[in-house]
Amino acid sequence: MTSGGGGGFKPRNPEYAARLAQYVAAQGYLAMLGVEFAGCEPGAAEYRLRYRPDVGQQNGFFHGGVVGGLAEAVMGAAAATLVAVGVNVVGAEYKINLLSPAQGEVLIARGSVVKAGRTLIVCRADVSVADANGVERLAAIAQGAMAPVGERG
Amino acid sequence: MTSGGGGGFKPRNPEYAARLAQYVAAQGYLAMLGVEFAGCEPGAAEYRLRYRPDVGQQNGFFHGGVVGGLAEAVMGAAAATLVAVGVNVVGAEYKINLLSPAQGEVLIARGSVVKAGRTLIVCRADVSVADANGVERLAAIAQGAMAPVGERG
Amino acid sequence: MTSGGGGGFKPRNPEYAARLAQYVAAQGYLAMLGVEFAGCEPGAAEYRLRYRPDVGQQNGFFHGGVVGGLAEAVMGAAAATLVAVGVNVVGAEYKINLLSPAQGEVLIARGSVVKAGRTLIVCRADVSVADANGVERLAAIAQGAMAPVGERG
Amino acid sequence: MTSGGGGGFKPRNPEYAARLAQYVAAQGYLAMLGVEFAGCEPGAAEYRLRYRPDVGQQNGFFHGGVVGGLAEAVMGAAAATLVAVGVNVVGAEYKINLLSPAQGEVLIARGSVVKAGRTLIVCRADVSVADANGVERLAAIAQGAMAPVGERG
Repeated sequence: MTSGGGGGFKPRNPEYAARLAQYVAAQGYLAMLGVEFAGCEPGAAEYRLRYRPDVGQQNGFFHGGVVGGLAEAVMGAAAATLVAVGVNVVGAEYKINLLSPAQGEVLIARGSVVKAGRTLIVCRADVSVADANGVERLAAIAQGAMAPVGERG
Repeated sequence: MTSGGGGGFKPRNPEYAARLAQYVAAQGYLAMLGVEFAGCEPGAAEYRLRYRPDVGQQNGFFHGGVVGGLAEAVMGAAAATLVAVGVNVVGAEYKINLLSPAQGEVLIARGSVVKAGRTLIVCRADVSVADANGVERLAAIAQGAMAPVGERG
Repeated sequence: MTSGGGGGFKPRNPEYAARLAQYVAAQGYLAMLGVEFAGCEPGAAEYRLRYRPDVGQQNGFFHGGVVGGLAEAVMGAAAATLVAVGVNVVGAEYKINLLSPAQGEVLIARGSVVKAGRTLIVCRADVSVADANGVERLAAIAQGAMAPVGERG
Repeated sequence: MTSGGGGGFKPRNPEYAARLAQYVAAQGYLAMLGVEFAGCEPGAAEYRLRYRPDVGQQNGFFHGGVVGGLAEAVMGAAAATLVAVGVNVVGAEYKINLLSPAQGEVLIARGSVVKAGRTLIVCRADVSVADANGVERLAAIAQGAMAPVGERG
């Protein structure tokens, strides 16, 4: 993956990548969307989603709710690379600007942690669409805060 | 529906309700989620979504991306009640605060228009979860701007 | 004041109104702007600011940074009505939509708490401008999260 | 200035830098705050503000409303570098995450344009605080949309 994490982050869980794959697999919504976990590093993660009408809106583009949902999910994933063993990550809030119609073959969301605080992990995400030749165009930018919480159950 | 629209809005398209039902049906993403169009009035709309694991996250709650996606979609729907015949609505930006775990049977999103400008229609949305007895609890609040655009060919 | 708080909030500090007046007075920025503390109730607060060129932009309207700053401050004030003795409130994040030029005599910001959580107090604010006759027009809407923190030193 | 603009932007007004200096000077609010225009390039701008109690909050840090206001203003400035002669820029909406107490000598806000659309210019901003030795720490990140409008009068 090419996303540059904020850099300099040290994971507290040495098994963070395996933990993240597990975290992704546990989210029914991501499976239904067809989200592919495309890589991570400490403080960064990447998700990809191939277009099909199920994730589209009335003009055949990726739906704004999908673009926003993927941005939220990838910021949660980036945050999840930094938490201690047994800590869960939930979204607290996020904001997204849709820059242009998300028309293309693959939606690529890259999240990175800007600040890993004790109660909030603030992240940014870029969402691009790639055409059949892999040429990317930026479709949306997002910013939000994820909350680390003690694992339930 | 019980959502109070901003009030005082006059639809420019007398067939706005039929148009909105058509707009909802044209969005593959909403169909895949299983979103039910629960009503509208000028400047307001309501969507409902029943829980199933496909729309959940790792703890069995509605996924944050679904909550945000539904908020975005219902703000678009509220905006769509006010545009002229042949005008489309796309999301420009939105922001959501997730207040508490969205745990329950049905997710209810109510959007209302605050200001219908020429280039941006600014909206708010409340998203609640209802339990099996229909008792609602507020799960998220959102705010955003929708853009009316000329219908594409 | 006419702002309707979320309702049903019980202040943990019985002296919350006096505490809030003190909190306002301690903020040099609010004094420089000329902000008047116009009232509060549990979970709600109101600030007012009279126009002068110092708070304007290039067209003689209230500056967008002032409108946003007042919205942020009044959400902090609304949150501050609910915290325990000795607890401070700082802004964590906020978002604002500017609806129309903030042209008028007095800027009126009303904040209310939507959810008072342990680590975040989520609020909304409406900012209006009143003309010389006191007729109000909604100029901006905001939403954000305030963080209660232990009092410093 | 060190802010990296989105890159690749061509100004439509060859006198954009002089125009921006004029735009800054015309905003009474920026003068009252004491904002220094620290540089620009096509699609990017930088503002600086030295600490004094007038721009502080109750703990002696830069006020959250000032941090947000400066972020909004610098995104407007970045956008203003790209508009045609005779076009004005007003804020449509913005969102800010405050990462840590803005404690320091100088507040430095750097805005850059991400996408210059016809009706909205979407920007990001980073706000840092520098200590007496010029060492910077990131204090806030922002994202928002500015609207180009025909010059008034």
